Order: sequence, then structure tokens, then C-alpha cells
Amino acid sequence: METEFMSASGTIRQQRVGRVAVSGVSGYAGGELARLLLAHPKTKDLAPLFVGRMIEPGAAQTTTTLAELHPQLAGAAGDTVIAPFDFKTLVEEGVSLLFLATPHEQSREWVPDAMAQGIRVVDLSGAWRLKQAENHSVYKLVDANPETAALFQAEAVFGCPELHRETIANARLVANPGCYSTSIILALAPLVRAGLVDLDHGIVCDSKSGVSGAGKAPTAKTHFMSAADNLSAYSIFGHRHTGELLEQLGLTNSQIQFTPHLLPIPRGILSTMYLRLKDKGTTKELETLLRDFYATSPMVRVRHGGHAGSHLPQIQYVVRTNFCDIGVEVAGDGKRVVMVSCLDNLLKGAAGQAVQNMNVMYGWNESEGLL
Amino acid sequence: METEFMSASGTIRQQRVGRVAVSGVSGYAGGELARLLLAHPKTKDLAPLFVGRMIEPGAAQTTTTLAELHPQLAGAAGDTVIAPFDFKTLVEEGVSLLFLATPHEQSREWVPDAMAQGIRVVDLSGAWRLKQAENHSVYKLVDANPETAALFQAEAVFGCPELHRETIANARLVANPGCYSTSIILALAPLVRAGLVDLDHGIVCDSKSGVSGAGKAPTAKTHFMSAADNLSAYSIFGHRHTGELLEQLGLTNSQIQFTPHLLPIPRGILSTMYLRLKDKGTTKELETLLRDFYATSPMVRVRHGGHAGSHLPQIQYVVRTNFCDIGVEVAGDGKRVVMVSCLDNLLKGAAGQAVQNMNVMYGWNESEGLL
Amino acid sequence: METEFMSASGTIRQQRVGRVAVSGVSGYAGGELARLLLAHPKTKDLAPLFVGRMIEPGAAQTTTTLAELHPQLAGAAGDTVIAPFDFKTLVEEGVSLLFLATPHEQSREWVPDAMAQGIRVVDLSGAWRLKQAENHSVYKLVDANPETAALFQAEAVFGCPELHRETIANARLVANPGCYSTSIILALAPLVRAGLVDLDHGIVCDSKSGVSGAGKAPTAKTHFMSAADNLSAYSIFGHRHTGELLEQLGLTNSQIQFTPHLLPIPRGILSTMYLRLKDKGTTKELETLLRDFYATSPMVRVRHGGHAGSHLPQIQYVVRTNFCDIGVEVAGDGKRVVMVSCLDNLLKGAAGQAVQNMNVMYGWNESEGLL
Amino acid sequence: METEFMSASGTIRQQRVGRVAVSGVSGYAGGELARLLLAHPKTKDLAPLFVGRMIEPGAAQTTTTLAELHPQLAGAAGDTVIAPFDFKTLVEEGVSLLFLATPHEQSREWVPDAMAQGIRVVDLSGAWRLKQAENHSVYKLVDANPETAALFQAEAVFGCPELHRETIANARLVANPGCYSTSIILALAPLVRAGLVDLDHGIVCDSKSGVSGAGKAPTAKTHFMSAADNLSAYSIFGHRHTGELLEQLGLTNSQIQFTPHLLPIPRGILSTMYLRLKDKGTTKELETLLRDFYATSPMVRVRHGGHAGSHLPQIQYVVRTNFCDIGVEVAGDGKRVVMVSCLDNLLKGAAGQAVQNMNVMYGWNESEGLL
Repeated sequence: METEFMSASGTIRQQRVGRVAVSGVSGYAGGELARLLLAHPKTKDLAPLFVGRMIEPGAAQTTTTLAELHPQLAGAAGDTVIAPFDFKTLVEEGVSLLFLATPHEQSREWVPDAMAQGIRVVDLSGAWRLKQAENHSVYKLVDANPETAALFQAEAVFGCPELHRETIANARLVANPGCYSTSIILALAPLVRAGLVDLDHGIVCDSKSGVSGAGKAPTAKTHFMSAADNLSAYSIFGHRHTGELLEQLGLTNSQIQFTPHLLPIPRGILSTMYLRLKDKGTTKELETLLRDFYATSPMVRVRHGGHAGSHLPQIQYVVRTNFCDIGVEVAGDGKRVVMVSCLDNLLKGAAGQAVQNMNVMYGWNESEGLL
Repeated sequence: METEFMSASGTIRQQRVGRVAVSGVSGYAGGELARLLLAHPKTKDLAPLFVGRMIEPGAAQTTTTLAELHPQLAGAAGDTVIAPFDFKTLVEEGVSLLFLATPHEQSREWVPDAMAQGIRVVDLSGAWRLKQAENHSVYKLVDANPETAALFQAEAVFGCPELHRETIANARLVANPGCYSTSIILALAPLVRAGLVDLDHGIVCDSKSGVSGAGKAPTAKTHFMSAADNLSAYSIFGHRHTGELLEQLGLTNSQIQFTPHLLPIPRGILSTMYLRLKDKGTTKELETLLRDFYATSPMVRVRHGGHAGSHLPQIQYVVRTNFCDIGVEVAGDGKRVVMVSCLDNLLKGAAGQAVQNMNVMYGWNESEGLL
Repeated sequence: METEFMSASGTIRQQRVGRVAVSGVSGYAGGELARLLLAHPKTKDLAPLFVGRMIEPGAAQTTTTLAELHPQLAGAAGDTVIAPFDFKTLVEEGVSLLFLATPHEQSREWVPDAMAQGIRVVDLSGAWRLKQAENHSVYKLVDANPETAALFQAEAVFGCPELHRETIANARLVANPGCYSTSIILALAPLVRAGLVDLDHGIVCDSKSGVSGAGKAPTAKTHFMSAADNLSAYSIFGHRHTGELLEQLGLTNSQIQFTPHLLPIPRGILSTMYLRLKDKGTTKELETLLRDFYATSPMVRVRHGGHAGSHLPQIQYVVRTNFCDIGVEVAGDGKRVVMVSCLDNLLKGAAGQAVQNMNVMYGWNESEGLL
Repeated sequence: METEFMSASGTIRQQRVGRVAVSGVSGYAGGELARLLLAHPKTKDLAPLFVGRMIEPGAAQTTTTLAELHPQLAGAAGDTVIAPFDFKTLVEEGVSLLFLATPHEQSREWVPDAMAQGIRVVDLSGAWRLKQAENHSVYKLVDANPETAALFQAEAVFGCPELHRETIANARLVANPGCYSTSIILALAPLVRAGLVDLDHGIVCDSKSGVSGAGKAPTAKTHFMSAADNLSAYSIFGHRHTGELLEQLGLTNSQIQFTPHLLPIPRGILSTMYLRLKDKGTTKELETLLRDFYATSPMVRVRHGGHAGSHLPQIQYVVRTNFCDIGVEVAGDGKRVVMVSCLDNLLKGAAGQAVQNMNVMYGWNESEGLL
């Protein structure tokens, strides 16, 4: 199966659709991505490539396997080798899409090279998510070629399929959203876009994430003794994902207050959001608005509330799925609103959403390989 | 050591100061209370009485021991017998203070009887905390003698020593605050009382509590499989502790929004609070305000923040202590404020605060037996 | 697709192979079974039936959905209705295989009725696992028709595909093994069958299981406060799974000592086994023996050890998979052996193994729908 | 209060009894030790000294406080400064006892220097616990002065007060036992010393420990994601604590098999032990034997079993106490025995036992400051 795409910056070369590669499988999101692609009906038979370091000229090419990095993947899939690579080889191997589950700096450096070879990219880092300089600056990235970088930054599509399905379909570079951002944007976008929210009053987003969100590096913060039986707030007024909220929801800094917390669980995010309506509304009206907004989005589930709250989203309901669950409650005064959204930070917040973007980019069923 | 108190409703009889009794030691808060009183320098040598059901005329008087209810208390203290009782016996035994760690209904029924015998009471239930009918009604309590009940309700002192130290000292009936309420009131009171908070804008209180707060009864909610690796919001716009916030902070319902969440940990509460200042301020100014407010309060620790947040309160720092830790951060605009407070829901949120109230009622060092 | 089986007790009627039904989906194992069958390539398109209570004559037929019982299954599959049933209806619907994830008593009662309708059964309870009266008696089951029950008990096949693949293939009644038993039998069977173990010396099996093994009923034991941050041994010298070990390994009561423990985790079992070899051996030899024994068993992974133990089985490697991982270490004296095995008690220890048995019964790939 | 001790190697200088110092308070055991000594009735008023690095000539003397290392200790005690030190200063300050919560190598180096100044030492490391070369060699320690080291090694007393109370009382150097070892030795010693155990058959010790036992350094093993929701065995046939078991119980290597496991909890150890009696016995007889053995030992609790096992030791019953709980069950054959023991690895397994040793060394009540 061959195909050809046109984009602002030129032609995407003919490649085997569905032959994909991943760089950065050693981390938690990368491991999940490998697992998903090896089981995905459209990609599993085309042998997804898992690639590690670049090939250094003259260096010994040591290899490792998926199962050595992620012992739970042992079995047939676990024998898959992590190969060194260069972009030319990827092209020769017929790779049409590259997932980067790499550090921000590496993603920033590699994307232009991948593009030069006509390979489409879904980047899971924060390197290409932000358009505005003041938001982007938190990543302190340095570009070898600032002009090229600026071009790609302008072209990059924010990979939230529920909001940007059409542009993602034809994108060469998809910037996969942050985990916290996804949980907040999906809950708020329908109300904000409908103009219902009193933005002058501002929105409070109190988010809580499991420890996998802090990465695989052993640190004092990720030590079991620090994280277990604990809860802590961090990065108050200063978390990197704030810029995504501002740009995607069209807000200013003073209109949204986002505070992340570290939960003593392996995975899952719950965001509790507080806002006021411009005009009076009811829980039922907002639920209907949400259901309509996501009527054609298979990975969002609108949960029915009730003041007991027993049916509101819970982390347990979404962990190890690609769903984002959303619930809403309006106070008796018809003005004050509480929203709750949940997702798995490694799936809908990272690897699962990346696969969902791939599905959209290739015109497959959006939830293919994700249910 | 004998003493005599005068109160609005009459004289408290001469009793041995420090001979105390507890009803309701089978629950988590009751167990902690027993543990504290058995180790407290002022009460341990006077043999605290632990009492269970009322003596039914003619019934067999079965007894159990503390260690049978709480195996971790085995050892010398664990042999302490839980005795049946009536109020007359308590008086004859020289008991001057009764802790009620009993259900709301039972506390409501027993307090008048204890008062009739001149016994002071610290009640850990919600039965006597609220003054205003619309707040109180959530407990749906029925009084045999509404007039007497109304008198005691008027007399009851809200047992937050940091705010009501003087009235607690002479109180006959102290209503020990709720766990969530304590964490929120202690953080907000200094700012609200100083008139710094833009109340029209409203305050958001996003609180998270460990499972012991849900009580000892095995339910679907407290099943390990429901609570572990999970987080859920509940009682949105409807939690019983809201009334305490309104009355203690002098707010109206639309000025404060409180949402509790169930954390997958045994104990500990963290509350994150969002508010706006009327006039611009700095983190340092608010920290100073808090430190001054609590300068003579040994059980409150004001934590120094910093945008990294590493020194903000964490649940781990307060669990198994009677401290409430408070931290504050002001945004760059000088208006938006985030506060974080933590406490152990079974100690500063229940049994520890009850002992602190006892210390104040008897004129002892406020932190006696609590450090 | 139709087929016909002959068995000792008669003919299995022609039915659509792959149309399956499950009774008992409200529990943890039943929920996992529903999830697996709805995604299984061979069964998902034939609409698995999920059935609850028997149809009482004249009773209102209330229905519920999978998602109401297991909110994490919401989405397309979650709308599946749990229907009341009788066996005749199952036959009319073309059901050829019934999974019973029901209490022991109910499984004992229903199996003869299912058989009478020519429906094959995989029973996840303990009702049909044991052949010997003294082992079986722990379940205290009462049969309406003891003779029929005895016939089925004799015919029932112990559903461990790695040991009884051939008889399972043609079985009408498969008794799915216990979770602890599976973890122990799979580790020990290769060595015991090869006659390597000094049985006079005896075998110690120290097993640890997550809380889902204790069932969904809220009890003091399954309360988060009892289970979290804890570990406890239970049923010493008296656990019901002991009989399975004796019968499957051909041991006497004094030759094996099995002690279960309750782990503070949702799912997963780790068994540590201690034995002595009759003749000297090495870790490598035993690993080879295990690998050879399981060469054609896709759901067993033999892990390579090393005295550091870093590659021995861990619960984390098997949770949410149908694998049983096994590792072995021989002491320097060539005699003392430690084995470690791990599995997910709800999958390889229950629902996953049931699906594996279905695969064998229908002649499908043994790991179909399980990778 | 001054005193004078005689020991094999000379006189202990006159010092203020009760003035103690701790080196190594930054770790978990050191932090617990600081907490205990600051609240201990006999030491708190003498200002325990907490000391860090040696004073380097000419180096700037930076100081830190307890609360900076252990934020939960903030409050009065938290302001205590961690001072640099040399041994001469300790003597001048009147320190009579030094606790070393330092790495094995540092303890090995410092003990001779402390002794030279007449300061008694309780060492929490493994540096001085073992008498036999083949057991001791696992620590790979290098001595500057092997002869002196050998002398102190011979003089060091294994700090298990329940077994060596008398020698500890007069010891200059107490080697505080390992955490696993304490849990096993206390359970087995009464039966082994009474000659009841069939040693030829051998003893199996299957132990499980919380993560604090792995130390404060962030590693892949102690990362929350590796430890949570998991269980793993490690150091099979090779754990360092094995030597303590051999020496204290008088066994040979083939007579005892010890396997540690890493539990997903912060603290606590549970050891399950399997042995056979030479002659038939009953649960009641062994319980009586244990109770008699520990009749004068306040920190051991013998739990009463019963086949339901509900009263056997559980980790929850001992965590944050200095108790070691022991339970025993004998099989129906009167020969096979299962024992279960529990303790808190940071208290009875480290800091608490160190304080208990101090109590014995100074002739105080053995449980002083520990209940």
C-alpha cells in the first residue's frame, strides 16, 4: 500500500503506509508505544522498528531487546531488537512514520532530519507543541538552524484528535499533547468554545498525576519512600503544560490557574476544574453539550454525574485504556461548575494518543488498536 | 487535684482533673485517642477509662480489651478493659472529661446526660459543631428534648484551639472540628480575618483525604480494590463539612467551593486552596502574616515555599503527628494565591485535636502528649 | 460453523462453535472474562452472552449492563446487557460453551443442568476440581443427586492446559484451577514428574497474593485500612487449594506445606518454593528441564535467574497478562533448590486460563486472544 | 550522674551517662534514632548531639538542621543542628555513647577511634556483627590496623537484648543486629536452644521487607514504579544477613535457607519460617515455650494463633513500634511447624533496637522511650 501527501512544505515521499518506527522505547511511554504497535491490527504485520541511538561511524553495533528493557513484554514480541539507526536507513526500510519518545532536546534536533527524508513524525516530547515564544521558552531549546526550526514549529499540529482531527490527517509533524494538558483541554474546550465560561472570573485546574508522569530516572522524588503514602503539590504557577492550556483554549495567563500534584499510584491523572458560567445552566445541559461535542470521538466518554458523585470519572475507570472520561456538575445557583476528567497519562496522555494520531494520519479507524 | 468551673448553665462539679473517659474506642479515631491518653503525661497515671455500650439492666457484662479491638496496642496498655458504663458510674469514678468518638446520633443523645452529671465533653462527631439550622440540618438529628438540645448547641464551642483557645478553656462542651474543615480553616482564617481576601471572587478548596476518613465499616468504597491505585471526587457541592467552613470563616455558600477526594493512602489530608487578594501582596508578606497569626500555636507549622514547591506541605510530613502544616504562594501578578495545608485526619483532624482541646480545657501545655 | 463431540457420557449437540455465555460477570474474574471474550478474535463477533440470575417464572426481567457493574468497560462493549436466563434459552441461542464464574454451590448445582442440554462448561469455582473425597470435603457441597454429581466429578478435567491439554480438548466439563494452585503446580510439575525431587524431605510453598483473590465482598479483611501497608499469613495448614496440589503433583499431605499470604496490591501472585533434589543438579540443568517441558506452552515463560536474582519472576512482569513466569536457583551444594513463580490471579489464575481452556477445547491457537 | 565501667580492654572514662551522639542521621534509621532520642525521657534533657562529617582542618563548617533532612521533624526538635565533629570534641562535650548509623566501611574505621577516647558505641551497620571470617567476608572491609580491628571484633557484642542482655550491659561495642536477622533469630532461638528442632531437616525462612530496608539512595529498584504493586525475591542463597543467623542460632549453611523479598510498603518485615520438630509437640506447648522464654522481655509479644490465623502477627500490628511479634502453628501431625514473626525494620530492626541496647547499657528500663 503506497500513498502520497502534499503539505505546505512539500511532498511526503511514497512509503509503505503502516511501517512505523519508534525512537525512545526505554522509557515508560516508549514501552507502552511498543506494546501498542506490536498488537495494532494495521502495524503489527509490518514489523514496527524500534530504534535507539544513532549509528556512530565505526562504532560497535550492540543491540538489546524489548524484553530486556521491559521484562513484562517477554514472549514473542519481547525478542524484538532495538536497533541503532540513521534516517536514511529508515527510509530504505520503508518507514513512513516515526514516533519520537525522546527528550525535548533530541526531538528538537531530529525532527528537521526526519522531515528532510520525507518521514512523518509524531513527537511525544514538548519540543513542538507551543506556538508562542513566551510559552515555548520554558523548554530552553537551542536550534542549530533557527529558521528551519521556526518553519517546522509553525507547521506542527497539536495532536489532540478531538480538536484538530482534520489538520492532523494531513500533517507531517504532529506534536503529541502533554498528559495534564489533555485531561484539562478535553474537559474545558467544549464549554470555552461555546462561549459559556465567565473567563474574567478565571478557571482553576487542580490536577493529580501518578508517578510514571515523573519519568523513569530514579530521583529523590520518585523514590518509593518519598512517593508512597504521600501527596504533594508542585510547580505552582510554573508548570510547563500551562502554555498548552493557554494556546489551545485561547486564554491569558490570569484566566487559568493550574496546579499539579504527585499521587502515590503508578499511573492515571484526575483533574478537577472549577469555573463559573456567564449565564445560568444545568448539569443536564452541560452534559448534553459535552455529549454532542464528542459524539464522533470514540476515545472520550462523558460520565453521568449526580450529586452523590458515584458515577463521576475515577482514575480506576481509565487506567490501561485510551479513554478520557469527563464529568460535570452545576451548583444549585446555576453558575458554579465543577468538572472532573480522568485519563491514563501513559496512554491517552502519551502513547495511546500518539497511536490515535497515527490512526488519523493514515485514515484508519480512530480507535483502531486502542480498544 | 480538684477544681471547679462556672459556665452559663451552671457549675461543673469537683472532679479529679485528668481522669478522663472515652466512649467509642473501636473506630480509628477512638483507637488513636486511647493510644494518646495512655501515653499522655497528665492522664496516663490516672487510668483513662474506655467505655462501650451503656449498662442494660440485667444484661451480662461482657468485656473486651483494647488489644482485641486494636491488635497493634497489645502490650501493657492493650490489656486495658473496655467497660460498659452509665454516667453515674463515671462520676463515682472521678471522671471529669468524657470524649465521645461515637456516631452523630449517639453523641447528640448522650451529651445532655453527661452535662447533667457535670461531666465536660469533647465530642468528635458532627452533632454539635454547627450553629445555623441550615448547616446543621445535614445531620438529620432528632432531639428527645429540643429545648435542652438547643441550649447545649448554643453553648458548644467549636474546638479549634488556634481560633477559640479562650472559650475552649472554660467550655463544658467542645465540638471537635471535622478533619477537612480543620485543614481549610487553619489555612484561610488568618487571611480572611485580616480582610485580605476578595470574597466576591470566591475561594476554591480542593481537598484530598486518606481512606481512614471514610470510617471502619467495610463498604464497596473502602474495599481495597476500589480505593487502591485510584482517586475520585465525591460529594461535590454537598459535603457535610461545608457548614463548618461557612460558620468559622464567616462566608456565604457562593463564596466557597469545597470538593473532597478519596486518596489511595491510609491517612492524611492535603487541601489546595485558590483565592484572590483584594490588594496586591507577596508570598513573603503572607508567610509573615501566617507566622505571626500562629506565633503562639505550637501545632501549626508554616512551611516556606519557593516556586519549586519542594518545601510546601506534604502529607508525609504530618502523618502520625498533630501538626497542621501550611504553605502559601502568590502569583507574579500579586493577586492570585495558592495555599496548601496538610494534617493527619485521625490526629489534628480528630483524636489529636481532641487531646489538644483537653490540654486547653485543663490549662496544660497545649502540645502536652502530642509531640 | 458446527461441530460434534463424543464423550464418555454421550454426544455434545451441534452448536455454533464460539458462541459462548458467562454466568457470574459481576465479580472480578467474571469481569475479566467478559473483557477477554469481547475482544477475542474468535468470540467477539458471535456476541458472547452474559447472564445473571435464572429466570423466575413471572418475575420482572430487570436488566443491567456490563458498564454498570464494571465502569471501566464503558464504551461499545459496556452496553452489553446482562440477561436473565435458563439453559433451554442458551441452547436456542446456539451457545456451545458456558463459563461459570459463580460460587462453588451454584456451580455444583448448575453443571448437571448444563450438561443435560449438551452445553460444555468451564467452571471457575472449586466445585469440580478435586477427585478425592478428603480433599473435596473442604467445600462442604451438598448434591441433590449424588450419583449424577459423582459421574460428573469423575469426568471433570482439571483445566491446566500445560498438563492436560489432550483431555481438555475433548472435555465436556473443565474445572479451572485455583490461582495459588496454578502458580505452584506449573513450577513444580516438571521436576516432580521427572522424579528429581526428594519428596521425603518435603516441599515448602510460601505464596503471596493480591487482594482481588479475596473477592469483591467488602469485609474487615478487604478493607483498605486492613490490607494496605500490611502483610499477613492465613489459613496455615488449611487452605482449600492444598488438595489441588496433592492431586496434581501426586503428593501426600506431609510432603507439601503451603502457606498463603495477603499482599497489599490489587492483583498478582508470587510463590516461593523450597525443595531438595535427590541427586545433585545445577541451575542451568533445571532451567533446561523447565524450558523443554514448556517448549510448546505459549503461556509459560521460564526466566533466567542468576544469584543477583534481578531476572527472576516479579509480579509486575505478569500482571495483566496470562503468563506464568517461572525461575529456579540451585544452591552451591547442588541439592537445595528455590523456585519462584508469578502469575496474575485474575488471568492465568482464573479468567485468562478459562479462555486458554476454551481455546484448547475448540482447537484454536492456545494463546488466541491472550497476548 | 557519672559512672565507670570496666571491660576486657580497659576502663571506660567517666562521662555523663545519657549524653549521646549520633552519626549518620540523614538516612532512614538515623532519622528514626534522632526522633527517639529527642523524646526519650533519659536523653532528651541532655541534648543529644547529631553529628555529620568529620571536621576537616581549615574547612568551612556548614551546618544543617534535622528538619532540613527530615521535614516531618520540623518543630522544636527540628531546629537541632547537625554539627561536624571529631572524637575529642565528643569527649569534651561529655558524650558517653555514640550511635553509628553510618555505612559499614565508616563504622569499621571509626569504632577504634571512638574506643580510643573511651566512648561506648552502638553500631547499626554490619561491620562488627560477625565473628567468623567466612561470614564476615561478605562486607569486604579493609582494616588499617587489622590487629586492633580483630580485638574489637572479638569484643563486640551482638546487640540482641533478648539473647545477650547481660553482656550488652557491660559492653563497650554493641553491634546492632540486621533487620531480617532480628525477625528470624527471635522466632527461632527459643526452639533451637531448647533442642526441639530437627536441624538435619533444615529450616526455611521466607522473609518479606518494606522498601525502607533498601536505603535512601534512589535506584532503579527503589523507584516507585519498580516497587509499587510488585513483589520480588532477591539475593537467593546469598543475603548478607545469613551469617548472623548461622552464628546466633549455631547452625551450618545447609541447615537454614533464607530468602528475602521486597514488599510494596514503606516499612515492616514479616518472616515465615518452616521447620520440623524432633519429637511431637502442639501449638500450645510451643506458645508456652515462647512466652516463658520472653517472660522478662518487654519488646517481644507472643501472639496467639488458631488455624484461622487471624491473630497471627501482621506487619500492621508492629509498624512504628519497637515490638517483635511472634506466632506459631503446629500441624496435625505434631511435627511440621510454621512460625510467623513481624517487626518494623527501622525500629526493632534498627533504631529502636539501638535505643533498647542503650537502655540495657545504662541500666535503664529496657523499654524506656520505646512504648
